[in-house]
This record gives sequence, C-alpha cells and structure tokens, in this order.
Amino acid sequence: MRLHDMNWQAVEAYLQHDDRVVLPIGSTEQHGYLSLGTDAILAERVAIEAAEPLGIPVLPVLPFGLAPYFTAFPGSLTLRTSTFLDVVRDLLDTLAGQGFRRIAIVNGHGGNAPALGLVREWVAEPREHRVQIVFTSWYAAPRVAAAAEGHEPDPTHGSWFENFPWTRLPGVEMPEGRKPTLSREVVAQATPADIRRLTGDGSFGGSYALSDEVMDDIWQTGVAEVRDLLTDGWAFT
Amino acid sequence: MRLHDMNWQAVEAYLQHDDRVVLPIGSTEQHGYLSLGTDAILAERVAIEAAEPLGIPVLPVLPFGLAPYFTAFPGSLTLRTSTFLDVVRDLLDTLAGQGFRRIAIVNGHGGNAPALGLVREWVAEPREHRVQIVFTSWYAAPRVAAAAEGHEPDPTHGSWFENFPWTRLPGVEMPEGRKPTLSREVVAQATPADIRRLTGDGSFGGSYALSDEVMDDIWQTGVAEVRDLLTDGWAFT
Amino acid sequence: MRLHDMNWQAVEAYLQHDDRVVLPIGSTEQHGYLSLGTDAILAERVAIEAAEPLGIPVLPVLPFGLAPYFTAFPGSLTLRTSTFLDVVRDLLDTLAGQGFRRIAIVNGHGGNAPALGLVREWVAEPREHRVQIVFTSWYAAPRVAAAAEGHEPDPTHGSWFENFPWTRLPGVEMPEGRKPTLSREVVAQATPADIRRLTGDGSFGGSYALSDEVMDDIWQTGVAEVRDLLTDGWAFT
Amino acid sequence: MRLHDMNWQAVEAYLQHDDRVVLPIGSTEQHGYLSLGTDAILAERVAIEAAEPLGIPVLPVLPFGLAPYFTAFPGSLTLRTSTFLDVVRDLLDTLAGQGFRRIAIVNGHGGNAPALGLVREWVAEPREHRVQIVFTSWYAAPRVAAAAEGHEPDPTHGSWFENFPWTRLPGVEMPEGRKPTLSREVVAQATPADIRRLTGDGSFGGSYALSDEVMDDIWQTGVAEVRDLLTDGWAFT
Amino acid sequence: MRLHDMNWQAVEAYLQHDDRVVLPIGSTEQHGYLSLGTDAILAERVAIEAAEPLGIPVLPVLPFGLAPYFTAFPGSLTLRTSTFLDVVRDLLDTLAGQGFRRIAIVNGHGGNAPALGLVREWVAEPREHRVQIVFTSWYAAPRVAAAAEGHEPDPTHGSWFENFPWTRLPGVEMPEGRKPTLSREVVAQATPADIRRLTGDGSFGGSYALSDEVMDDIWQTGVAEVRDLLTDGWAFT
Amino acid sequence: MRLHDMNWQAVEAYLQHDDRVVLPIGSTEQHGYLSLGTDAILAERVAIEAAEPLGIPVLPVLPFGLAPYFTAFPGSLTLRTSTFLDVVRDLLDTLAGQGFRRIAIVNGHGGNAPALGLVREWVAEPREHRVQIVFTSWYAAPRVAAAAEGHEPDPTHGSWFENFPWTRLPGVEMPEGRKPTLSREVVAQATPADIRRLTGDGSFGGSYALSDEVMDDIWQTGVAEVRDLLTDGWAFT
Repeated sequence: MRLHDMNWQAVEAYLQHDDRVVLPIGSTEQHGYLSLGTDAILAERVAIEAAEPLGIPVLPVLPFGLAPYFTAFPGSLTLRTSTFLDVVRDLLDTLAGQGFRRIAIVNGHGGNAPALGLVREWVAEPREHRVQIVFTSWYAAPRVAAAAEGHEPDPTHGSWFENFPWTRLPGVEMPEGRKPTLSREVVAQATPADIRRLTGDGSFGGSYALSDEVMDDIWQTGVAEVRDLLTDGWAFT
Repeated sequence: MRLHDMNWQAVEAYLQHDDRVVLPIGSTEQHGYLSLGTDAILAERVAIEAAEPLGIPVLPVLPFGLAPYFTAFPGSLTLRTSTFLDVVRDLLDTLAGQGFRRIAIVNGHGGNAPALGLVREWVAEPREHRVQIVFTSWYAAPRVAAAAEGHEPDPTHGSWFENFPWTRLPGVEMPEGRKPTLSREVVAQATPADIRRLTGDGSFGGSYALSDEVMDDIWQTGVAEVRDLLTDGWAFT
Repeated sequence: MRLHDMNWQAVEAYLQHDDRVVLPIGSTEQHGYLSLGTDAILAERVAIEAAEPLGIPVLPVLPFGLAPYFTAFPGSLTLRTSTFLDVVRDLLDTLAGQGFRRIAIVNGHGGNAPALGLVREWVAEPREHRVQIVFTSWYAAPRVAAAAEGHEPDPTHGSWFENFPWTRLPGVEMPEGRKPTLSREVVAQATPADIRRLTGDGSFGGSYALSDEVMDDIWQTGVAEVRDLLTDGWAFT
Repeated sequence: MRLHDMNWQAVEAYLQHDDRVVLPIGSTEQHGYLSLGTDAILAERVAIEAAEPLGIPVLPVLPFGLAPYFTAFPGSLTLRTSTFLDVVRDLLDTLAGQGFRRIAIVNGHGGNAPALGLVREWVAEPREHRVQIVFTSWYAAPRVAAAAEGHEPDPTHGSWFENFPWTRLPGVEMPEGRKPTLSREVVAQATPADIRRLTGDGSFGGSYALSDEVMDDIWQTGVAEVRDLLTDGWAFT
Repeated sequence: MRLHDMNWQAVEAYLQHDDRVVLPIGSTEQHGYLSLGTDAILAERVAIEAAEPLGIPVLPVLPFGLAPYFTAFPGSLTLRTSTFLDVVRDLLDTLAGQGFRRIAIVNGHGGNAPALGLVREWVAEPREHRVQIVFTSWYAAPRVAAAAEGHEPDPTHGSWFENFPWTRLPGVEMPEGRKPTLSREVVAQATPADIRRLTGDGSFGGSYALSDEVMDDIWQTGVAEVRDLLTDGWAFT
Repeated sequence: MRLHDMNWQAVEAYLQHDDRVVLPIGSTEQHGYLSLGTDAILAERVAIEAAEPLGIPVLPVLPFGLAPYFTAFPGSLTLRTSTFLDVVRDLLDTLAGQGFRRIAIVNGHGGNAPALGLVREWVAEPREHRVQIVFTSWYAAPRVAAAAEGHEPDPTHGSWFENFPWTRLPGVEMPEGRKPTLSREVVAQATPADIRRLTGDGSFGGSYALSDEVMDDIWQTGVAEVRDLLTDGWAFT
C-alpha cells in the first residue's frame, strides 16, 4: 500500500507486527516515444502491486536517478552519482531509525546500479539491529528476463519491453518494425550527443511495441517475482 | 502538464516556443491524521492545476525534503540538508542545460526553506544564459495566507489548513474542536521526541477540519496565485 | 563577555555554573555607503552588549556568510552554502562537546537563513545531553522590527536601518532623500550584475540615515531583545 | 609498460604518437588462503602483460577499492564509495588534462562496480576533446568467463579462479575438495560478521586450486582479451 | 587598512591602482594563561600593521581554524579539515573574482598548515588571470624565528612567545620560571585528553613571559617581515 | 613484510602478538629524469626494508598523492586534497577497526603534508581504544636530512637525492654538473606551466647524481631511521 495513503499512526500500528517496507527508485529520462517517467512509473507500480496483498507500505518512488548520458534529450533529468547515493543513504537511515528492519529497493533503471554499491556499504556499517536490504532491478530479475527473452531477444531501453499501457502516451503512434539494436559497447562510451545522434529517437533497438498479451505476461511475471522477493527474499531471520 | 505525460520529443517541441518549467518539492512526513504525503501531494497538485492552462510542464514532485524534527513519527522521511540542496542543484543544472530559462519551484513544506538559499547561490553563479528561478511556498504566498487567516487565524502544520479531499484518508476520523496551538519558539528548539511528546498526534494546533467550501476557497486561491506567478512572476525579460 | 577576553581556565570556571554561550554570525558584503563589515559588526556588538550583564561568553563573530548575489561589489565575500553550513555545524559540535548546553546564534545577515535549517537538523540528531539552540536574526526580531517600522516603513539592506555610529565610515557622506525601494521579488531573482545595475550604490532603498536618537532607540531595543532571549528564550529546562 | 618505468619525458614522447593509457584498479581484501592483494595483483599484471606489446603505459594499480563487507577479515581494506569514486574521477581528470584521449580501466574486483557509474557520469560531462573510457572487469569479460566456466562452473571469490602462481603464497597449503558455493543472494545481504561466519575461510566456494595448465589458459585468455580491448575496444575514432 | 573600515566603493577605487589583499587566518583555542583568541589576534594585528603604510586592505581574520587536539580545553573551537579548506577556497575564489591578483594569507596558527596544501592546489587550477598567493605563518618566518631563538630557544605554544600586551588578559598572573618543554613527538600523537593531562595549563613549555622590550622586538620584526613580503614577496610580475 | 605477501589468516595471527602496521604514501609525478614513481617507490621500499626484521606488515603504497603543481609534466597524477585526505581517513578507519593500534605512515612526498593535519584530526576523535599514528616523511627526518646535507647542501626535488638504483631508469643518462637551485618561494607560487618553464627538465636543482656510496649511505640511514621509529617512536604505551 502506498505510504502516502497512510498517516503516521497507521505506520506505527503496522510496525507492531511487520518490519518490511519498499523503496522504489526510478528515473525521469527519455524512453523513445514512451513517457519520460517510464522507469519511475514501472518501479513504483510493480512495487505497489507486489506489496498490496502483503500489506507492506511502499514509499513514493524516487523519480530522479542517474541518467547523465541522456541529457541531450530534453526532459531527461539526472542527479550526480554522489547526490543520488546520498539520497538513498538518507532514506535508509531514516527508515532504519524508525524500526524498519527489512527494506526492499525496487529499481526501475539500469543506470541506478551504483546504488547497489551504496547498499553494500550501508549494510556493512555497524548497527544495533540487523537491517536487511533486498535490492532488485525488477525488469532484469531472472523470471522477467526469461519471459522477455522468450518474446523477443535482447530487449532494450525504450523498446517494446517498456511499452506498457501505463507508459505509453495517448496520441503517440509507435513506429512499425524492428529497429536495429545499438551495441552496448558503443553506448557505454557514448556522450549524450553521441546517444542522441546514434539512436535518433532514443530507443536502443528492437520492436517498439508487442501485443497487450505479451505485456501482460511480462507484467504479471514481474509483479509475482517482486512479491516473492518481498515474501521469501530475506536471507536472515 | 505532467512531464511524465510527455515524451522527450514533446518537450523538445515545447522548448521551441516556451522556456518555463515547474519543479514541485514536497516532503513525506507526519501530518497528524492526514496523509504522510500531504506536502508532496499539495505541491504537485497545485503546480499541475496552475500550469495546466498555460501548457507548462511540471516535473514529478520531489517527495522527500527536510524534516529531521519529525523522525519520531514513523513514516516520516528526511534528507540531510546537504543532500537535499544537492538534489535541487542537480535538477536546476540539468534543466538549464536543456534550454529551460524560467524555472518555478513550488514548495509545499516549510522545512525546505534552505532551498531558497541554494537558489540564490545558483542564480549568482556565472552562466551563459540568464536562467530565472521563482521560488514560492504556495501555502505561505500572500493571497493564500490572507485567505487562510480569514477562515481561522494562525493555521498550523497538520491542521485544517492542510486537510483537503486529496490529503485526508478514507476512514480516518478527525477530532472535534480546536487544539491549542503549539508555540513556534518551542517547536524551533524541539527534538523529534519533544515534538512527539508535545503534539501527541502531530498537529501543531487549531481545528482539524473546516468545511469543503473553505478548503475550496483556499485551493482555488492557491492555484490562481501560483498561476499568476508562472505568468507574471518573472523579474527579467 | 568576549570569549577572546578569556582564557580556557576562565571558561572552565564559567561552565561550573552556567552553560550558555553566544555565536554571532555575520557577513562581509556591500552595504551601500556603509562598512563592508556591517552585518558582522552589528551581530557581534549586539551580542556582546546583550550578554555583558549576564556574564555569558560571546564567540568572535563569523565574519563570512552567504552573500553570493553581492559579489559584483568588490570587497563582498561569500561562502558556498555547503561550506557555511559546515562551519556552523563544526562550531556547534565543538561547543556541545565542551559542556555548553544552551547556544544562542545571533545572526546579522538575512542571507544566512539556511543556517536555521542546519540548526533544526543538528538539534534533531541523537545526542547524550539536550543542547538547545536559539537562533535569532536580531534586526528582524519582533521588537526591533516594530521599532524600525515605526521610524520609516520597510527598512532595507544598506539603508538607515543599518547606519549606526559603528557601521558608518569617517568621511563618507550619505546621500540625501529617500531612495525608491527595490522590489524584493526582483532581488530574489537577480544576478550579482543585476543587483549592481539595479541598485547603483548597493542600497535597496529608503533613507540613507536617520537621527542618532532613532538609531539609539533601535539599538537599545535590539540589545534588550537579544538579552531577553538569552535569559528567557530557552524552551526546555 | 609500467608508467613507473618511465619518466615524464618518455610520456611526453609517447603522447606524440598515441593517446592510450591503462588504469588498473584493484582491492586489498581477504581472498581465502590467497594473497590479500589478489585483486590488485591480477588487475595490474593482466594490464601490464596486455599493454606490453602495444607500448601503452600502465598506471600503478589503485590497490584499495570497495570491500566494506570483508572488514571482519583482518588485512582487508576499504574505501567509502564516495572516496573511491573521487579517486577515479581525479585520475581521469588529470589524465585527460595531459592529452590522454583513450583510457582503459582494468578492474580486478567485483565490488568496484560503482566506478562504472562514475565513468558514465564523467564521459557525459562537457569536454573540449572526446575522451573515451573503456571499463573492463577482466575476470568477468566474455572470453575469460567462458573459459572459467569450462573448467569448473560458477567460479567464486577466493576460489581456484583467483589462484595463480602470483596470488598464492609460499608455504600456504590449499584445502582439498570443493567447498559448497555460498548463495549470492545471501552474500548480498550479509554483514562483515555474517560473511566471516558463513564462509569460515573467506572463500565463497568451489575448488581451491586447479592445475597450472588450467590457470595458464585462463591467464592467457585474459591477457589476450584485455589486449584486444586496448586495440579494438574504442567505439569512436 | 581593515576591509571593515571600507565600503565597496573604496575597494573599487583601490582596485584601480592595486590588486593586493591580505587574509589573516587564526584560531580560537587555549593558549595557557593567554587569550583564547591569541592566534587570531596576532595574525590580524600583524597583518594590519604591516599593511597600513602600504594601503592594502586586510580582511577580518578567520577566527576559527584547525585545533582538534585542544578540544579538551573549554573555549577552544575547531573546524574539520575539510570545512576549513573549503572556507579558504571560497574566500580565494571570491577575491579572485573581484580582481584581486595578489593575495597574502597571514597565518597565526601552526595547525592551519593544511591550508598551504589547498593554496598549492588552488594556484594550480586553470585561471584566466594569474593570481598569486603568498602564504606566511608570521611567527615562524625566518626573521621572527631567529629573533625569538635569540631571546629564549625553542619558543612554544602558549609560552612567552605569544605573550604580547594584546594577548595577555587583565588580572591574570603568569607563573614564574621556565616550564619544561613538551616533546613535539609526543604532542603529535596525543589526544585532547593527553594534551590536557601532559600540559596541565596548556602551555607547551618555556618561560611564560619575557620583558616588554623583548616582545616589542619580536613584534616589530614580525610586522616588518610581513610588510616586506607584501611589498617584495610576489614571485611573478 | 608486504601485506600482499600475507593472507588474512596470517594477519589475524600477527594481531595476536603485535598491533603495528605501516602505510606508505607516495605520489606519481615528474622527477626530472627519474621514474615518475620515485616517491611511491622510495616510500614503499624504505618501509618494507625497515619493517622486515620487525615482522610488521606494510600496506601497498598509495601511489597517488597531492601534486597539482606538476600536472604540466605528462604522467604526473594528482588527487584533490579532499580526496586524498578521505583516502587516508578511510584506511585509518579500516585498520583501527581490525585491531591495529599503532600505525606508521611513511610518506615519500612533500606535497602530501596535509595528511598530517588529517592525522591530527583523526587522533583527536573519540575512540574506544587508543590508536597511535606516527607520521614520518622519511627523506626529511633528522638523520637522513643531516646525511644529505653532508653530501651536497640543499637537496631538492628530482635531484641526486632521489636518484637511487631503484628510481633511475635504464638507458636514461643524467646531465653533468650542478643545476642552479630554484627558489622555494618561487615554487610555492608557481602554476604548473610556471614550473615547467622554470625547471625545464623538472629538477629543482643541484647535482643530478652522486656516487652509489653516497646513495647507499642515505638509504641505510633512512631505513634505520624508519626502523627506529617503528620500534621506539610510539609516545604512549
């Protein structure tokens, strides 16, 4: 359930019988023809749907992440790495200080990976109580990744793989056909201007859209996989 | 219009004829019986409604702000001041780099005031193009403040003044009567535990709810005041 | 009494029977025709005079603050916000570590307001002993502000309101008449070059000087108001 | 060739005809029965052997990385993430300032992955000349990974996979047999004390040693793979 | 001349014909029986007297420096090294931005030595105009040091060497005789509590006071030495 | 003994009977005709030879230090002061956390002096156990300095004084004669370009090489002096 649909009294009551919480982290950045909020929308939504039947509160998504390479596409925002890691640290500190002991970070953006390093550092710090952190990039978790590969190999940024009813925009038509996939090695060395030039529309390649059935399969797989993690993903008890 | 309801192409087209953008900043923190998201919800909503007829894009609200004094109320989050200022700086830098030249920060939380200092610093830095920043705490702007005082003097944190249909929670009943108002001097020196102890339910005093008509008046005043600022609030042309 | 008029043995003796201390913070920046040190001079002097009969030690004023918007006026200095907040934090930490439990920050410069955010953060941190911080901008405190308004409405930066015998300079003549007041909205969005251009001499408007009787009234009001705060301004006992 | 085997005149001469340089980054941390320097030794050595025939200078390895989870094993060092990223940034800045335009970072430690985020950020910053960065974790690159899997699946930290003549220690005998492999999910959530308790000797599982022929195969594969990257791994020309 | 005895117009006029400025940096810390402000008082005063006949403006002394080892003596303040270096950097940046091209830092405290490292870094940064920085610890400069050694060898912290009419306190009597000198090696490794225990009164040894003639000799030597530096100490023209 | 020649079990065994450790810190920077690694090579080697008979572990040298003024000589690397101090802090923190109680920092580069300030700060922080830090710049310690002066007065950067069999490069011939010594005052104010222009080859003056007997004398003196420090240099027991 959304933390914003609770007041503090409800959270206090919750903490009497559970100690889990979900922090979705996303990004606001170009996704080809899709919403600039794609990563934030998906991370928050998958977290909420996964947590709903478990009654676990879900923080509002952190809508800004690490996307320095997309700044040549207007509307893309980015934080410096140091800022981003500080945000994650501060949120973990506050949550741990209030009695949350199992925190799931549901990530929607590949560029946010350095957060995982921060999590390792944070977990290693001396702490009175054990606080476990599960970090998952929902779209790259084993079951979702397998499902995606089964529909069209090598799903990329801004492709069909992110084209859900809640990330596509009214009145925006998708191009037909499969766009050639951009080499990951090239992307890794590219400046914002390079990526703009090389991708044209921002998508990294593949089909722009698959059927609603396919997307529903991906989505249900993702929700279930995150939910299982929230249930059974804690290493220590 | 929500930036998340646009793709980058739409933003690029927008920048051909306008250079304004809105960044709402809020907080996730106790608001007595109201939603933990009150400040974020109100800042984002007032920004969106104000910007709508003007066609100005509104970033997703920054849902975390400066609320260290509320950490004894579970579900309240806070960033360190340094982190928070870094976030605001990074967003301003990115927006300015993409051609936005008039940025309105619509603030929903009193504790976020140090952002104004950062804005002054940012504006004073050498920059190729002039980038103007309007910073408004919508609930404290002259017309809203006057309207509120007209309904019940000295509106406080967690009181009727923040009790809108979109910040109250289903099934949560408000206490009757007017709570005595907590001294601002005491609050300024209080630790989180003090504030918990002194306020009990988190509200700083006054009525917990006024009529829908009153709230609608406040709201329409706020939307109009922000809209006027987005239209005429820029000092330099 | 000035801390610099004490040795450590005297401070140790003082701490046997009292735990208060005053930290004045100022700025070195243009004040129209007045001393570049105006804000520092006034904050330190009002603190010393207020503390004198109470026997409370007063630290040397922090002569540098946040004045990025004045850098186009030579002789104006500024710290970055992050630096300034770090200085305040370090001083609070040191004082608290030595047994001071009630610290009054007497501020002489409006731009230093983010220090108040830092103070809130600092007070909210876990600490073995309660350490109270009173933060006052002496020139904006209720009684001084009322007194000033009574003499000439809307007193501004670099105007008569800062023109004391100890901030005016020998041989510098003040312009006659009342300068039109600069809009605060414009100032808030102005670059250093704008402020230089818009103000000419740096003053934000109003008379340049009022009578010595007026200034003495302001001053005595300020000293008394700070002294009362040092005496009765502590929220917790 | 080692940069430390050159003087500045030799580097200046080199820059007349080439603009590549290698920065190996490692870690000093427990590796079961192997040298505490394993990651640094391997990263530096593979870089030197790969670069030798190409005449590319190789910086001294950064011997300290991100290993907060190993601090319960004495002799393991770690930097904070922020420190580590600052070091990488400073080295990149200095190299770029001297005319190096193609920088290969050869990483020897999985925990150093956040450096990749910093590299993405650095590459995206405005810069007068294009500076390309290739980042490779040599032990996880496709050909080495495939070779390793061919010898014994799922090679882990502190296992045979890191047991080279130059990382094993004289007089230290390796245990026989295959240690059960520790779950990666558990490791990701483990504190330093957990990892000490769960691993006993620090190895994450598998055989402790394979034959010299196997190790030579791995090594030659790694050297060749890095060399190919130094030769053909640059995306832009 | 004190910058605080000038307004911005005077500084602007000065910059038409000169580009020098003095920044005194001190410390507020125990000095045995002497003023807690000794280092700040001396640095500021020697700077002002040296600069007076040259007409060079002198900033207000930075009264807080690096004195973490003295915190067990109440009334001693300290900044973190990072904070202190940031302050120095910010002041240099502001001064250079206003046209000062020759900046003398007159240091009054041995513990502030890391500022010299910051100065080297600052000078090495790319800059449109050459800005020279002379850094002198006035009490350790060759002529003062020689004069002091001639009066009593090995002058130390808190001894006669810092006992000037303007650092001694009314009514405070100095002990007779020579205190044995504390080993510098021991001091370097000592905690605040150690230094308190080892020194008793805070002085590091030697006589507590010498004659006024001696002190006047030291002082005049210091003033002259700083003045010569302000005149002839600039390496580049 | 090199820490890299140990595994964690060996360090744990060592800590049963001793608590000393050595951290050599160097620099990678121009040294005239000598190796770019001169400072790192010498600091690490003198530490290892000094520690060998005492059985004290020696960390790998930190090969990067503070050399912003040498960046005009290709192959010179530098860290920002803040980064460098953070690295030293992190290493001290990790070592102290593992039971090391006496840490010797053997420094090979004059520019690294701000590390001493950080060490003073670190030692002054509250800590459960006493951790002593001895900081020595081996080449400037009393006995080495005296020995050097006996061979040729005023030994400088990049001169014979750093020309050891392990810092000179094969095939690089040294100039004959004594180069005039560069004024230290000039160096202190020089930009990287100045130093390049003023020194030509990077050496600060004096002979480029003395006899092997001389160098062996210097070296043995240095090794013995560091060894004595590791043995008897601890102020508290």
